[in-house]
Amino acid sequence: MAGLEKVLEIYEQIWALNYALALIGWDSETYMPEGSAKERGEVTSVLETMKQRLYISQNLLSALEELEESAESDVEKGIVRVLRRTIKYYTAIPADLVKKEEKVVNEAKIAWRRAKKEANFSLFAPYLEEIVEINRKKAEYLGYEDHPYDALLDLYEEGATTRELESFFDSLIPPLERELKRILSSGWPQDHPLEEAPYREMDMETLNREILNLLGFDWGLMRIDRSAHPFTEGIGLYDVRITTWYHGKDFRRSLLATIHEFGHALYERQCDPKFWKTPVCGGVSLGIHESQSRFWENIIARSRAFASFLSPIVKHHLGIEASPDDLFYYFNLVRPSLLRVEADEVTYNFHIALRFEIEKGLIDGSIEVKELPSLWNQRMEEYLGVVPPDDSLGVLQDIHWSLGAMGYFPTYSIGTVVAAQIKEKMEKDLDLENLIEKGEFGPIREWLRERIHRWGAIYPPKELLRRSLGGGPDPEAFLNYVRGKYKW
Amino acid sequence: MAGLEKVLEIYEQIWALNYALALIGWDSETYMPEGSAKERGEVTSVLETMKQRLYISQNLLSALEELEESAESDVEKGIVRVLRRTIKYYTAIPADLVKKEEKVVNEAKIAWRRAKKEANFSLFAPYLEEIVEINRKKAEYLGYEDHPYDALLDLYEEGATTRELESFFDSLIPPLERELKRILSSGWPQDHPLEEAPYREMDMETLNREILNLLGFDWGLMRIDRSAHPFTEGIGLYDVRITTWYHGKDFRRSLLATIHEFGHALYERQCDPKFWKTPVCGGVSLGIHESQSRFWENIIARSRAFASFLSPIVKHHLGIEASPDDLFYYFNLVRPSLLRVEADEVTYNFHIALRFEIEKGLIDGSIEVKELPSLWNQRMEEYLGVVPPDDSLGVLQDIHWSLGAMGYFPTYSIGTVVAAQIKEKMEKDLDLENLIEKGEFGPIREWLRERIHRWGAIYPPKELLRRSLGGGPDPEAFLNYVRGKYKW
Repeated sequence: MAGLEKVLEIYEQIWALNYALALIGWDSETYMPEGSAKERGEVTSVLETMKQRLYISQNLLSALEELEESAESDVEKGIVRVLRRTIKYYTAIPADLVKKEEKVVNEAKIAWRRAKKEANFSLFAPYLEEIVEINRKKAEYLGYEDHPYDALLDLYEEGATTRELESFFDSLIPPLERELKRILSSGWPQDHPLEEAPYREMDMETLNREILNLLGFDWGLMRIDRSAHPFTEGIGLYDVRITTWYHGKDFRRSLLATIHEFGHALYERQCDPKFWKTPVCGGVSLGIHESQSRFWENIIARSRAFASFLSPIVKHHLGIEASPDDLFYYFNLVRPSLLRVEADEVTYNFHIALRFEIEKGLIDGSIEVKELPSLWNQRMEEYLGVVPPDDSLGVLQDIHWSLGAMGYFPTYSIGTVVAAQIKEKMEKDLDLENLIEKGEFGPIREWLRERIHRWGAIYPPKELLRRSLGGGPDPEAFLNYVRGKYKW
Repeated sequence: MAGLEKVLEIYEQIWALNYALALIGWDSETYMPEGSAKERGEVTSVLETMKQRLYISQNLLSALEELEESAESDVEKGIVRVLRRTIKYYTAIPADLVKKEEKVVNEAKIAWRRAKKEANFSLFAPYLEEIVEINRKKAEYLGYEDHPYDALLDLYEEGATTRELESFFDSLIPPLERELKRILSSGWPQDHPLEEAPYREMDMETLNREILNLLGFDWGLMRIDRSAHPFTEGIGLYDVRITTWYHGKDFRRSLLATIHEFGHALYERQCDPKFWKTPVCGGVSLGIHESQSRFWENIIARSRAFASFLSPIVKHHLGIEASPDDLFYYFNLVRPSLLRVEADEVTYNFHIALRFEIEKGLIDGSIEVKELPSLWNQRMEEYLGVVPPDDSLGVLQDIHWSLGAMGYFPTYSIGTVVAAQIKEKMEKDLDLENLIEKGEFGPIREWLRERIHRWGAIYPPKELLRRSLGGGPDPEAFLNYVRGKYKW
């Protein structure tokens, strides 16, 4: 126990800095005066450096070695594992590469914005080339067994490998192509008049709050605001905040974003309070996090039962008369489209498969940056039968690469698939449909808490999946879900 | 310059921690979910400890000694002075006294709230006794030349002494008593029907924003929110936030609070940007800060010219028809009353004089805690002719002592008086009345920037006053202002 106490005594400062950085991050997207961004950038950078120094301090390293020798419980082992991961990152990447990345990313963000606006990939290409180069170097510094992309994947999804993901997408994509063809030719709706139905923002906000109430949002420890893009910020175990957006029409977008973020927030909030102020408090990986948001967004909110539950509430708050069937189809249109963020749950995975292939190829050198626009458009046509009219609706659509992040995208598909596994497993214990229709979400929250949330990060994602769901990510669960749901 | 660079390199971390702590403080009063207070308390305490460690680190001390030897410019000397003050505080007070204070204050806050609610001083008295004892010890540790209360005054108003303040109140209070008698017997209004006029919060918010626009609020770097009690938080030089409150009637309260906080915010914002990330960036003392808020609240917003400027704006936003004369008298009612926070600018100083006498006596032992209720009521009757019906409207009304703060109150009167000095001085350069009536506040902001704001904390408050206003605080300026304004 002495080792653990020493580790946590030092970690307390990292924890407090993380809390401050999270609040700063939340504020930057919600209430910060616009002109403050530059000053804030400096503050963040100083606090990050302080954090990094604590992570690689001899004090922490010695205490950690002591703990490593004595660690017996899963919690202690988890703490060692999570700390070692971060320390490895800070130790492996040399300071000049970090500096270079910061510099390139600062310029790349601006270049990307301009390139997207002008639909001119060549403005962004030189920066993307540098970013690819930096990521390749990172992979070398971090080390990998098989494929350099493994090192990058592991940053977002601990233990994920290129080979595994190849087999994951190989099992997922071809059958999903067949399902998509079947759905589209079956006459399943591709659009709906409710997409154009206007709402007053005030009413929509009330509707969102009402739904959050019913889902079990804990207002004493959580809040919702608005931002340009919805996100969740776990500031502390006892302060978890979400945001949503409003567009004045197509209320599905605001509502589903709210419910999606609720899923993330619940995962953060339902961690075992015993892990408070330790490195294992909170979500274990981006893929598992996304499985929680997708579970609430796709499995719950896009279900036929939820449509029944929602119909009178929508009428009450928005004055929109929509039958449960109307709502169900409106929430589940299947329409091959150009933009990932607007994709439905069936076509979404094709967008990710495309990005996975490209990132992998960029990192191992089999794809060059200059090929991207034509490659992108060709694959979009093969997968979804749509071709971007210009690069702003194609290869330039996502912000991720301009931020330097490669290896992030696959976690979206992992999450989508794991959400379907959760449904399968949960239905063995709960009458899910009936609970949703009656608006009884307590047992669902409890199931998630017990199986997934409370464990925080003490097990690596694959082990958590094995313990909670018997394995995964398992594309078959998602395919079964699609086969069962999209029957016209 | 080497010394300065080294000092600022270490100070950068203190600066970033201060920024984080300020944002956390702002958030705690505005958007924090209620149940998060305990976790946040721990975060704050960890970050404060980290800050303290940096202040007393050998690194900073060595660099500071080097700077001290080479310091030539006013800025460098100011940086040394300000850092030495904080270091002295952290070094002089032993850790166990700090711990004891934290503990007592935690309990005292709760006891005070209950005592106030039940109007029962005896519930708070034992805690106040401990707080007095702790403050006495603090004074001993900090050291003083003449009176132990000097050491406490200096924490809030650098260089202020008991003897000076005795002479300050001796010059202020007796003539002000005569003025008050004169005003009251002249028939000057003591109440006004507008005190009862209701408003819709939405309209009031629009009015506040409109007035802030006209005063020159920089929305790109500032914002306004609501909170239980209005306050200003200078998070960074480029992020200054104010709050206000709403009561549904008596719009003067919300508007004057907004303008008061604007004065604080402008002081923070108009510091010389060259001082950014140094210890001399921002206001120099509570008294000078209060002079800025009072200047905008009392000298500007309670002027006859402002009433003319405001009258059509109030009509437009609140639908309230009030002539300039109506507004002027409504904003300047003189009414002896029980509560400091509701006092007008004439009677306000009596409330402060009373608290000054009591604090001084508690610290030097000439007054005992148990005497306070009767002493309070007796002095209230002498000064203002009103006697609190119970202690919640008397000795229990202010939160300050329950937070452990003694020596803070006098800065309110210093600010009130200095605001009048600024008026006197400014009128030699500007046609103040005319500018206010036309709503041209730019030259006023510029005058304040040039004379006071831009200097940040490089000069101690008394030196700043000497340089900017030829001296002070000078009660005569305030008495002249009162004599000139309150003529019926």
